Amino acid sequence: MIKHALAVINGPNLNLLGLREPHLYGNKTLAIICADLQQEFISQAELTFFQSNHEGAIIDFIHACLGKVSGMVINPGAYAHTSIAIRDAIAATAIPCVEVHLSNIFARENFRQESIVASSCLGLICGFGAQSYSLGVRALLPHI
Amino acid sequence: MIKHALAVINGPNLNLLGLREPHLYGNKTLAIICADLQQEFISQAELTFFQSNHEGAIIDFIHACLGKVSGMVINPGAYAHTSIAIRDAIAATAIPCVEVHLSNIFARENFRQESIVASSCLGLICGFGAQSYSLGVRALLPHI
Amino acid sequence: MIKHALAVINGPNLNLLGLREPHLYGNKTLAIICADLQQEFISQAELTFFQSNHEGAIIDFIHACLGKVSGMVINPGAYAHTSIAIRDAIAATAIPCVEVHLSNIFARENFRQESIVASSCLGLICGFGAQSYSLGVRALLPHI
Amino acid sequence: MIKHALAVINGPNLNLLGLREPHLYGNKTLAIICADLQQEFISQAELTFFQSNHEGAIIDFIHACLGKVSGMVINPGAYAHTSIAIRDAIAATAIPCVEVHLSNIFARENFRQESIVASSCLGLICGFGAQSYSLGVRALLPHI
Amino acid sequence: MIKHALAVINGPNLNLLGLREPHLYGNKTLAIICADLQQEFISQAELTFFQSNHEGAIIDFIHACLGKVSGMVINPGAYAHTSIAIRDAIAATAIPCVEVHLSNIFARENFRQESIVASSCLGLICGFGAQSYSLGVRALLPHI
Amino acid sequence: MIKHALAVINGPNLNLLGLREPHLYGNKTLAIICADLQQEFISQAELTFFQSNHEGAIIDFIHACLGKVSGMVINPGAYAHTSIAIRDAIAATAIPCVEVHLSNIFARENFRQESIVASSCLGLICGFGAQSYSLGVRALLPHI
Amino acid sequence: MIKHALAVINGPNLNLLGLREPHLYGNKTLAIICADLQQEFISQAELTFFQSNHEGAIIDFIHACLGKVSGMVINPGAYAHTSIAIRDAIAATAIPCVEVHLSNIFARENFRQESIVASSCLGLICGFGAQSYSLGVRALLPHI
Amino acid sequence: MIKHALAVINGPNLNLLGLREPHLYGNKTLAIICADLQQEFISQAELTFFQSNHEGAIIDFIHACLGKVSGMVINPGAYAHTSIAIRDAIAATAIPCVEVHLSNIFARENFRQESIVASSCLGLICGFGAQSYSLGVRALLPHI
Amino acid sequence: MIKHALAVINGPNLNLLGLREPHLYGNKTLAIICADLQQEFISQAELTFFQSNHEGAIIDFIHACLGKVSGMVINPGAYAHTSIAIRDAIAATAIPCVEVHLSNIFARENFRQESIVASSCLGLICGFGAQSYSLGVRALLPHI
Amino acid sequence: MIKHALAVINGPNLNLLGLREPHLYGNKTLAIICADLQQEFISQAELTFFQSNHEGAIIDFIHACLGKVSGMVINPGAYAHTSIAIRDAIAATAIPCVEVHLSNIFARENFRQESIVASSCLGLICGFGAQSYSLGVRALLPHI
Amino acid sequence: MIKHALAVINGPNLNLLGLREPHLYGNKTLAIICADLQQEFISQAELTFFQSNHEGAIIDFIHACLGKVSGMVINPGAYAHTSIAIRDAIAATAIPCVEVHLSNIFARENFRQESIVASSCLGLICGFGAQSYSLGVRALLPHI
Amino acid sequence: MIKHALAVINGPNLNLLGLREPHLYGNKTLAIICADLQQEFISQAELTFFQSNHEGAIIDFIHACLGKVSGMVINPGAYAHTSIAIRDAIAATAIPCVEVHLSNIFARENFRQESIVASSCLGLICGFGAQSYSLGVRALLPHI
Repeated sequence: MIKHALAVINGPNLNLLGLREPHLYGNKTLAIICADLQQEFISQAELTFFQSNHEGAIIDFIHACLGKVSGMVINPGAYAHTSIAIRDAIAATAIPCVEVHLSNIFARENFRQESIVASSCLGLICGFGAQSYSLGVRALLPHI
Repeated sequence: MIKHALAVINGPNLNLLGLREPHLYGNKTLAIICADLQQEFISQAELTFFQSNHEGAIIDFIHACLGKVSGMVINPGAYAHTSIAIRDAIAATAIPCVEVHLSNIFARENFRQESIVASSCLGLICGFGAQSYSLGVRALLPHI
Repeated sequence: MIKHALAVINGPNLNLLGLREPHLYGNKTLAIICADLQQEFISQAELTFFQSNHEGAIIDFIHACLGKVSGMVINPGAYAHTSIAIRDAIAATAIPCVEVHLSNIFARENFRQESIVASSCLGLICGFGAQSYSLGVRALLPHI
Repeated sequence: MIKHALAVINGPNLNLLGLREPHLYGNKTLAIICADLQQEFISQAELTFFQSNHEGAIIDFIHACLGKVSGMVINPGAYAHTSIAIRDAIAATAIPCVEVHLSNIFARENFRQESIVASSCLGLICGFGAQSYSLGVRALLPHI
Repeated sequence: MIKHALAVINGPNLNLLGLREPHLYGNKTLAIICADLQQEFISQAELTFFQSNHEGAIIDFIHACLGKVSGMVINPGAYAHTSIAIRDAIAATAIPCVEVHLSNIFARENFRQESIVASSCLGLICGFGAQSYSLGVRALLPHI
Repeated sequence: MIKHALAVINGPNLNLLGLREPHLYGNKTLAIICADLQQEFISQAELTFFQSNHEGAIIDFIHACLGKVSGMVINPGAYAHTSIAIRDAIAATAIPCVEVHLSNIFARENFRQESIVASSCLGLICGFGAQSYSLGVRALLPHI
Repeated sequence: MIKHALAVINGPNLNLLGLREPHLYGNKTLAIICADLQQEFISQAELTFFQSNHEGAIIDFIHACLGKVSGMVINPGAYAHTSIAIRDAIAATAIPCVEVHLSNIFARENFRQESIVASSCLGLICGFGAQSYSLGVRALLPHI
Repeated sequence: MIKHALAVINGPNLNLLGLREPHLYGNKTLAIICADLQQEFISQAELTFFQSNHEGAIIDFIHACLGKVSGMVINPGAYAHTSIAIRDAIAATAIPCVEVHLSNIFARENFRQESIVASSCLGLICGFGAQSYSLGVRALLPHI
Repeated sequence: MIKHALAVINGPNLNLLGLREPHLYGNKTLAIICADLQQEFISQAELTFFQSNHEGAIIDFIHACLGKVSGMVINPGAYAHTSIAIRDAIAATAIPCVEVHLSNIFARENFRQESIVASSCLGLICGFGAQSYSLGVRALLPHI
Repeated sequence: MIKHALAVINGPNLNLLGLREPHLYGNKTLAIICADLQQEFISQAELTFFQSNHEGAIIDFIHACLGKVSGMVINPGAYAHTSIAIRDAIAATAIPCVEVHLSNIFARENFRQESIVASSCLGLICGFGAQSYSLGVRALLPHI
Repeated sequence: MIKHALAVINGPNLNLLGLREPHLYGNKTLAIICADLQQEFISQAELTFFQSNHEGAIIDFIHACLGKVSGMVINPGAYAHTSIAIRDAIAATAIPCVEVHLSNIFARENFRQESIVASSCLGLICGFGAQSYSLGVRALLPHI
Repeated sequence: MIKHALAVINGPNLNLLGLREPHLYGNKTLAIICADLQQEFISQAELTFFQSNHEGAIIDFIHACLGKVSGMVINPGAYAHTSIAIRDAIAATAIPCVEVHLSNIFARENFRQESIVASSCLGLICGFGAQSYSLGVRALLPHI
């Protein structure tokens, strides 16, 4: 059985996961979330992880995925609400992509209740903590 | 092992699934989606299905879930964008609930890009066709 | 000559026509309007009349029209301005439909000057009292 | 002395009063509130109680009040903020009506700070828990 | 039997009807639409036709209708959405007027979904192609 | 039995009550309304009346109520819609307060359909003429 | 003493003054208003009158004023609210100009409560019927 | 000949006229403007002048005009844009009133381009410096 | 080599170019700009020039271009921001068109920062004075 | 060394500082804050303190500062968000002024997140409790 | 003849030109566009090319242009709509700059129809594919 | 005495301070401002300076401050108005932070009159040039 190469992309401040504000985002570090995720899909997917606080670096990485991965899961963090450029990068590569968020963006501040990025994704999953990533990969697989 | 009693609630026009507009919503009927869903979670959950085109009937059903089910998955259809009353019904019961949509509401008309209902749910999953339900149940289970 | 089966659907409060607020809506009852309408198109169409104050019941009826009627005239009343669900029901059935209003919605309160329902209809006719229905049927016939 | 026939109408989720979210809405059930209310005005009014989660059923009931009651007190719940149809039903019957709310809608979420229904009522009373109903009946009596 | 003198007024770009963009507006020329319309109402009305791309010329013509015609049908084209001056001209003459559009303005761009002109008309008919004019005359006749 | 000390505060232009615009505000003077009100609650409350057209004077008076009264009824008149400072004064004193209006603010101009002051009050009562004050005192009493 | 050459410009529908809607605009014809105005300022100013329903014709006339008149009074009618082009024409000529309206635009529909044209004028006078013109000329004279 | 008693009311900061910001408001003091104004209308009107920086004091003064003056000219200064209370005071007295401004409010900051007060006045005159007062009195006289 | 027949269309107030407000629009007259433009493209294009202050006349001219020219450059002046009708005229003819402006509309008043007309053009060029026309023709040529 | 005469102005409800809502505004009284402030700048400045709940009184005081003080620190309280008149008073005197707030207005309700007054001040300091005043004086000194 | 040193700056996703979405952006790679551009202006300008997906890197590069180049052409891509920082960088350097876009931003999604960056540029050119760059350089040259 | 370790963070374009636009931002370079600031607080604080035009680099630096500094002063420049990500970074670290700006953002363009970043800071100081930094440090010290 061939494993799918997938990218899991994390945006700004997500490197602090588990270290800061656990009441908001849980107490798992990003490293643990990533390891758990790889473990969960060990037989189906080879995951490449990327995290950056730089909008441009995220765009660079998405471009670099061309020809390398067949699907992407992205937690754009705060850039979800402001970055047309990340939205366009995903659209330009045409790689199937799922947007995920740890928290339920509809139950937070007004400025977090819309996603610019989501319009170039297959869909959005939010509100389930670390499980959002797992659901994201699962949602992605049939589209590859 | 004890199976969880869960409700799967569908809002207006979803009874036409698979019969009409397959390019938008896929060609599975709601009955098939429901049967597949029960089958998928056969060992973990006992699902009760409900569909209505009536906002009030959906509220009645949510109330009736009190003491009967330990979790809900709801696809409120168009009521997601207009019904404060359904939002309040979910909040009042305090039963963990996940909102799902077949299509990616962020890639459709402006009036579909917000959800009033989601703010009283654990989270939202949209864009993955019939799979959105499956992901919804999966997302719900750890919260019961 | 084969008569067309058409549905004439009336939304909330229209059952009070002729009984209340005649200065706004005229003094013909809905029953009389319906009878007159059937009479006027006696040779061309077989009309089925439906009125409900329930958004859900209207959606149910529209669904039930599938395979039964070849055209619909709808006066959604106040639901014209708030119901995405009725709009979606009409779009889902793909039965040709004409929206009518007794009063000129553009000459009333701001919240009556838009129609959500109309975007899934062939067109809209408003402002001509009971005659709006007659014009609606007439507008509908060539599209069947 | 002749007692006035009055209707007391309750909208969505109010059947859960006293059972759920007592910190928000108090711990009296709707049945108790109704009984207390009837008791308080035992010498002045004969109250008919109605509760429904269905917008359409509320409209039906308001219509049915024609010729039966000489005044109405309505707590439209969440429909206060979205239902033009209920607003129109009250206006069409021209029965004096008072809108009441248990909580102070001006101290809650933005979407609860306006009332569409109130513009066809005599006035609005909100923020006083079960007492709001009592004040509502009291406010209504001089207008009959 | 006395025939009614009616004016049929067409606004900007409607002189190109049938010549350009037939997928949007049909393939009948304005001349043919006018001839058909006159023919259809030959026994009831004497129609005067006017088309101009000039907002001012349309206003001049409406003024000139005073004392000459007893009803007007106007397709203001794009001026429907921007011209307070045409709206005022119709109101000033107090000649009964019906606004018509070939296409369903509610199913087009946002800026076409409102009509400033309609608030000084009896009503509006849109979405039925050339038939909109015929329905417009028919709607107008009882008001003369 | 101990009588409660309550303040009844009236904002701008209410000194003209009964003298001007009786069609809008009734024909009782403020003095009469006050006297009636004191009379009605003679056994329960000792009322202190205050009226001013000055926003600052109203704030001064609210401050002066600290330690003197155990409840307030305020008709802020037009300041209801514009004064954050009066809102803050009520919040700062933490004295239970009820906002009242003679007319139904929801059935008047748009700029009267919101209240900034109400968010620091127990609730709002509007639309019942002089009776609004009576209902206001009655609503207030259980909160003292 | 040298008389000033002034232009008095009237926009759409003002040619109907005195003939239509006297309750709104008074019963003096534009001709009489003009004659009265010339008479009133007979010793100070030579007035040139212009009226058109055409936005373009008004712009043409304003241009033609260059070098011919030393001041302008303009009643742009409905174009006050929509015409950037007339605003620019006045600014381009740099001839001192006063905007006048017969009615108080602040006491009418929302869409009449702003003036685009006024920002390139010395000032605005509205609400005084035919007297607005007289006040306009009087306001203009010191600026020449 | 009987002279009319008129009030000339000035709002906040107008006491600094001529002393501060002459480039914006001219270099005449308010005292001089008042004296000139009285002089200009010496044979027609007896003017009472009032200036205050207090919204409440202006309302008090307007009330005090009842029965004393037959017309008012008001320059509400910055209160024009924020005071519903002054607007209501003028409406309540029903004394004919003209709003004036020294500067052209349409050519200044956005927040100065609307007047709440004007809707209860006969009309508005702005942009002509001290002459605005003179025009205001002149506009007022025929309405007394 | 065959020369292309092109139209160069100028909207309101552009006839004053070079004569008025040179600090804003430069000191070349429209005639000189036109002559220079023809000279610059003497070997490639035969230019027809048209200027009007009338929205309707511009529409008429655009229609008249059908079958006569193979490309258009339009400076709609202030109509760029308000005219849906000119936008529709360009779309209806389907002649390739470039919108140009002398000044940078993005660095001016808010109401000049959008173009309704541009959406039916190939593109927009603004900010380069008379050179904008030259760039416009150059941009147009490859599309013919 | 000459000491600077400075005014420290406090707006509505600030007289309650230290007495009410200490969790929001700290537990120092305004008197203590003032005394501490004078003490801190004893060698550099002679401070005059003023507090009023009256918008008009604050304007009066600002005017009275002319020629008396060479700098002002103002905490306009709730008037920061609504008073164009105070803004204009500061601008008219042209005395250097610093706006201060105890709390961080950007971390509170939406209606507190803008300042109308600040645009006529040198700058704004907010969020540092009583220290905001100290920083305000310090910020002011170099501008005198 | 001295050649001008010019910078040509490209923003996010433009490195994918020609490789992705050719229906939107054409099939020329950025390298080819750059080479063609240098070739076209070989005798007039020495072009330095820069592309980055990083907002900060673009700002760094613009700063580095100080003293090195005498003009800039920038295609900010999606940053045109969101980056105040790039806008400020261009303004700070005061190097003449032209904004270009391949596609007609006025004929795309709403969020692409404004440019924040353009307000610190000489002007904007959009809609002409690779030719937009050529027109941009041409527009720039006279300003150096 | 132990010196506090503090970070002073500067956002985009602030590296040009003193070199460009001195009329807006003064003529001190950032290096001099930093040196002066260190000198001023030599006995109390050890300052670490950081400047970047990259949003991501600023976020990286804020993260790196964890455990290294006990307070931060940030001038986010243009990112103040657009970056939710920087706002979140400050909130995540929970290090006390003060936002400063050289210019008074309330007296500039509309898009500079709000701060997204400030809501996660202790407070904001703007308008005092280089002194804003000094005040920022001073405001920060008591919170460490």
